Amino acid sequence: MLVDLIALDGDDTLWHDGVVWTVARDRFRTLVQRYSNGALVDSKLDEIEVGNLAHFGYGVKGFVLSMIETAIEVSKGAVTGLEVQQMIDLGREMLARPVQLLEGVRETIERLASVYPLILLTKGDLLDQETKLARSGLGDFFSAVEVVTEKNQETYARVMRRHRVPPSRFLMVGNSLRFDVLPVVAAGGHAVYVPSESTWAHERLPDEPSETTYARIDRFGDLPRWLKAAGLSA
Amino acid sequence: MLVDLIALDGDDTLWHDGVVWTVARDRFRTLVQRYSNGALVDSKLDEIEVGNLAHFGYGVKGFVLSMIETAIEVSKGAVTGLEVQQMIDLGREMLARPVQLLEGVRETIERLASVYPLILLTKGDLLDQETKLARSGLGDFFSAVEVVTEKNQETYARVMRRHRVPPSRFLMVGNSLRFDVLPVVAAGGHAVYVPSESTWAHERLPDEPSETTYARIDRFGDLPRWLKAAGLSA
Repeated sequence: MLVDLIALDGDDTLWHDGVVWTVARDRFRTLVQRYSNGALVDSKLDEIEVGNLAHFGYGVKGFVLSMIETAIEVSKGAVTGLEVQQMIDLGREMLARPVQLLEGVRETIERLASVYPLILLTKGDLLDQETKLARSGLGDFFSAVEVVTEKNQETYARVMRRHRVPPSRFLMVGNSLRFDVLPVVAAGGHAVYVPSESTWAHERLPDEPSETTYARIDRFGDLPRWLKAAGLSA
Repeated sequence: MLVDLIALDGDDTLWHDGVVWTVARDRFRTLVQRYSNGALVDSKLDEIEVGNLAHFGYGVKGFVLSMIETAIEVSKGAVTGLEVQQMIDLGREMLARPVQLLEGVRETIERLASVYPLILLTKGDLLDQETKLARSGLGDFFSAVEVVTEKNQETYARVMRRHRVPPSRFLMVGNSLRFDVLPVVAAGGHAVYVPSESTWAHERLPDEPSETTYARIDRFGDLPRWLKAAGLSA
């Protein structure tokens, strides 16, 4: 049994991402602290972000718009132009920040890329994800970048078809059970779950399902060993 | 000589788009008219938009951020939270607006789709373009949607490879010489130019090149006749 294509999630699978959002939220809280207390700001921002997902999708630009709307609301319209400008500048910084790879990622990707075609399969903003891959220094190891609006069973089936890979020879690796693992298994593919400290609440499942249908490794660097043990390596 | 795949631009090729932006700019000008005159607002917005393209890319969300930055600048920071909220609401309206097809598009797409696989090949925001295709009612006629960050020769070569179509059997149809026609011809494909009233200044070329390497039709509905005349129809 072999794998013809390995698809990898990016954020908090290959590189740190959640921490960038945590820092941004901290800075936002400080920016609007004269209007409201931190806990209220957090819950209002969460609420506005979730409400905006359908309109604005995932990514930094939508987050900036949600910060601005939250600031307008908690300040009852008193937020100043200068403060709004600081929120936009914060977004621009997030988009230009250096990308920090997770431990063991670079060596593992180099090693995998010499054996398997790799694709980046991620939600989010197209431009943001493409430039993140470029800034990560890993761009040359990937044969394609697929940015999708939703990661569900249908999405994975479409990616398999488009790359002409039968489900049994497709492997997805990521840090979200909800988006990187369960829909892949439902589509007939293999999935490896690499838990991350930073998985966004929205991506978590209330209860982790039993591991009968997917594998779990503790660190990304364990992937080659797992492939070998599972009889999936060439 | 036959065509294996037809790729189509969306905005102002299949559906009205430029007019949506013109209306939005008019509304923005009115929103900030107490701070600055229309001509200054226009030129400042243009300048900020072009500067933001590298950070925010194409699409409504980036446009909203550019409107807000323009408002902050022309008002010297005096823009109010309520006014900023109106700019965000304007963006949300743009994203949810009904999609109006250009004349003859629906019949032509139906007819073409019965003979050729069609894909939508467009720049812009992924979520925005996918929902626009859905709102257009044409989604079922397309086998794939490719949203790209740049439409250049390399992009077209990649799309041809990914769909396993030799350049000589690939046809692109769109309203921008700069993005839909010349890079396709450079990549060895066929291209048909359908001029539009609404082509954004940024997409225009200073001088239209001579038509030795691509075809030009006046209306989208002329496409089937052109395919036949060019010996490209099945």
